[in-house]
Amino acid sequence: MKRLIAIISCLLFLTTIKAQQNYFNPTVKVKDYLEPAIPHPTQDAEMKAKLSRLPKKPNILILLIDDMGYGDIGAFGGGYAIGAPTPYMDKLAHEGLQLTSTYSQPTCTPTRAALMTGRIPARSGLTRPTLTGEHPKVNPWASENTAAKILSQSGYITAISGKWHLGETEGSLPNDVGYDEWLGFSGVQSEYAQFVNEWIYPDLINKPERYNAMKKLVEQAIVTGKKGQKNKVVQPIENINDLAKVDQIFANYSEDFIKRAVKDNKPFYLIHSFSKVHNDNYVSEGYKGKSPAAFPYKDAVVEVDDIVGRLMKLLTDLKIDDNTLVFITSDNGPNEDVWPDCGYTPFRGGKGTTWEGGVRVPGIAYWKGMIKPGRISDGLFDLCDLFNTSISLGGAYSKIPAANYIDGVDQSSFLLSDTGKSNRNAVFMYSETSLMAVRWQEYKMHIKVFNTSAKRKNIDESTIEGTGMSPWVYNLYSDPKEQISSGHRFFEWGLPGMLGLAGAHLATYQKYPMKDIGLKKPGSDD
Amino acid sequence: MKRLIAIISCLLFLTTIKAQQNYFNPTVKVKDYLEPAIPHPTQDAEMKAKLSRLPKKPNILILLIDDMGYGDIGAFGGGYAIGAPTPYMDKLAHEGLQLTSTYSQPTCTPTRAALMTGRIPARSGLTRPTLTGEHPKVNPWASENTAAKILSQSGYITAISGKWHLGETEGSLPNDVGYDEWLGFSGVQSEYAQFVNEWIYPDLINKPERYNAMKKLVEQAIVTGKKGQKNKVVQPIENINDLAKVDQIFANYSEDFIKRAVKDNKPFYLIHSFSKVHNDNYVSEGYKGKSPAAFPYKDAVVEVDDIVGRLMKLLTDLKIDDNTLVFITSDNGPNEDVWPDCGYTPFRGGKGTTWEGGVRVPGIAYWKGMIKPGRISDGLFDLCDLFNTSISLGGAYSKIPAANYIDGVDQSSFLLSDTGKSNRNAVFMYSETSLMAVRWQEYKMHIKVFNTSAKRKNIDESTIEGTGMSPWVYNLYSDPKEQISSGHRFFEWGLPGMLGLAGAHLATYQKYPMKDIGLKKPGSDD
Repeated sequence: MKRLIAIISCLLFLTTIKAQQNYFNPTVKVKDYLEPAIPHPTQDAEMKAKLSRLPKKPNILILLIDDMGYGDIGAFGGGYAIGAPTPYMDKLAHEGLQLTSTYSQPTCTPTRAALMTGRIPARSGLTRPTLTGEHPKVNPWASENTAAKILSQSGYITAISGKWHLGETEGSLPNDVGYDEWLGFSGVQSEYAQFVNEWIYPDLINKPERYNAMKKLVEQAIVTGKKGQKNKVVQPIENINDLAKVDQIFANYSEDFIKRAVKDNKPFYLIHSFSKVHNDNYVSEGYKGKSPAAFPYKDAVVEVDDIVGRLMKLLTDLKIDDNTLVFITSDNGPNEDVWPDCGYTPFRGGKGTTWEGGVRVPGIAYWKGMIKPGRISDGLFDLCDLFNTSISLGGAYSKIPAANYIDGVDQSSFLLSDTGKSNRNAVFMYSETSLMAVRWQEYKMHIKVFNTSAKRKNIDESTIEGTGMSPWVYNLYSDPKEQISSGHRFFEWGLPGMLGLAGAHLATYQKYPMKDIGLKKPGSDD
Repeated sequence: MKRLIAIISCLLFLTTIKAQQNYFNPTVKVKDYLEPAIPHPTQDAEMKAKLSRLPKKPNILILLIDDMGYGDIGAFGGGYAIGAPTPYMDKLAHEGLQLTSTYSQPTCTPTRAALMTGRIPARSGLTRPTLTGEHPKVNPWASENTAAKILSQSGYITAISGKWHLGETEGSLPNDVGYDEWLGFSGVQSEYAQFVNEWIYPDLINKPERYNAMKKLVEQAIVTGKKGQKNKVVQPIENINDLAKVDQIFANYSEDFIKRAVKDNKPFYLIHSFSKVHNDNYVSEGYKGKSPAAFPYKDAVVEVDDIVGRLMKLLTDLKIDDNTLVFITSDNGPNEDVWPDCGYTPFRGGKGTTWEGGVRVPGIAYWKGMIKPGRISDGLFDLCDLFNTSISLGGAYSKIPAANYIDGVDQSSFLLSDTGKSNRNAVFMYSETSLMAVRWQEYKMHIKVFNTSAKRKNIDESTIEGTGMSPWVYNLYSDPKEQISSGHRFFEWGLPGMLGLAGAHLATYQKYPMKDIGLKKPGSDD
């Protein structure tokens, strides 16, 4: 409640600032429940003309890699330079659209929730990763709509392959919330990993009473299921060998799903959700030491890249690569807590923070014959835009229910026009329910910051602090590492405008409030 | 003298360590005065076969950009993402060999000296940038041989276009030290810039007595000259407009030189030495605000990239692109002191330090039909290798005088073999005459470090400190930002080997000592 009052006070303060609406906020509101987007009629027309030439509804394949850093892919500055070449992803980046300003949420569950619902996690209630055996009081999914659900109602066959981590109880698994089917696990790699390696977790594994007490909390298994049916176990995860092969099992399932969809002549929507490269990384057969770096993380990057290549080859073999949008991204920045089993970002901070290192992720959109090869854009792309964009491409935009505010915008024309610009005006960055920062054009304004004074700038040992009298502003072109706040030196002209954007954003909570699903922190006062 | 004793003691200590010679040092000594290289007979044969098919001696074009960061070029993680697209350099990177482990010296003069002489600056005496009006007691060039000189004696026509900054008095200008001709200025961009902008240097410019006293120290002009002749003024540099066009003047000269060489049917060796993107950046006509970032530095990157494109177009137009090795690099990392008029590195530290941010620079080798397109390698390349490589390609290797130790190695086969590996085993990083760090494979061992605790990790406010009991070691694959020294956690197996490499390197000073040219620091004790 305190938080709500704080938000409203902030809002009242902010809305008194008269922003240069025209320039700072060129968006147009179409529906009350839809985030306003920047109108681009010419590129919209080009996009529509391209889509009209498709013989059938396009497939959508989202490749979601876990905890991979912005800098891991070669095309984003990593690859060979950091001991883990990514030739398949590089090829897609070079022959598709490389998006250099793609934003996730700071952690896994919120990003996945945003990507699937199109909503900022504060609205869905899925504001942080749930921990082993921890269940929200309220099922957030009861009042959410996934892109899968909407597309499934519009002729698509929909599935998720791999990691879920958006609820482990009945009513909150993929086949409960709109996916026609799935195969994967409900948790996260590290929850399984902690039971399999006595060298990393001796204090858990080598004390049988502790091990048994904790292990039964976690469903240690890959399961599969269809809409309206119970899930069944495919494979237990009981040791390193079981864990090492999960991504190959997910890849097999994705291949099978795609083949079935093509055979049934149905457009598909598939989220291929890697378990890797989340810690602890155990690679499948043939991958140990395969990367030049020979660390598990790096070998895992190579395995992930090979799976990307394998799925792309299937699309080509099935002759559906020209009818499939492929989008590759990560759910957040590298988890520096677990170094060296983590990725690389050139930016400040890592997973769990709203510094660029935490929320700026690689983005690659590839679609043979539809997205012009060799495009690079720093136009803003929030992963929640994948909700709108997928539904738009599936021709189901009018089916988005009006009850929930949708923070995503339709980026179809950004992706498909040969000179497309982003339809998104700003990205709003949160830690749970706190608005932390706003990105607009090349500027990033922090209202609150993660203290990164600890040696490792991580989740486990970070604090959130206010920014003093004024927000901190970084010019991400001249200061991509967010080292020198220059709001009052070089950006006074823009501060009122950006504060206005924050105010307008917070104002949406009046009609579309945050949802509290009862996930509490020890000591939390609300 | 104290320093020499320290080095010898260190040396004696280090050489007592029995390194795993075979694995840590697979190099072979061919001549006493040549740095041993790793033998690669198969790729050498491939290189020779390729070269034997050339109708005539190849041209060598080195494009040396001033103070550009590792991350500025798009192919190295910059470009669009940081508001300054570099399409021409990206194209060369993608259609040539992208070298992700190219090393310069920490500052300008030492890098240029190393590149031209093949020697670590401690040997040539050119260990730091000279300042306005400051002259060494001993002319370092009296006992140095440039690649230009050796190639000029072997049928090449040789020139440097642009910045020199390796001596401003007679006997130390390009046409005195082996270049057949040159056009450029003897100093550095900032020395001219400080006299032209009252908003940055009001305390100099708005005090006439101060301005006049200092200005006469600097030769404020672009000059040109030929071997054996006096230099003559081409254009004064008296105001912003004069300074803004210097890189276009250098480009015009380079074009003219190349055309003349082709007309005269002579192979050429040309160092095109940009004035940009050293501070203060003033772009020439048409470039102000041309970059999306619209900062002078970013506009300057765009101008530099356009000049690269223009020179490449000339090579194509003249049909010599298949007979010209083009090498693009920078002389050191970004100068964070002058932010925002500086470049971007994803790494720790900047210009003036031996952190990766100071010495790891972009490297692109392009040679149509000779270097396989799309190659990327993190093989070690020290810019002093350009001395050996240029002379080797020019067929003049036997003409390298035996009097001086050459620290460079011939990298022709690394560049030309389709699967070439670096012939260099280690990179030795110096600050003036102090060995600071060694890179071997993906490991970097610091013996001394620049303290980067200041907010900006810069030249002006850095200190050099010892590393305590043990060197610090970073795994640059898993820790490219040098954040977590892991020598005694993950690298005890390699420490003795790397210490052995340092010892063997320092031992070369016994026969080939450092040269003192009498450039002193206030308070220096030797």
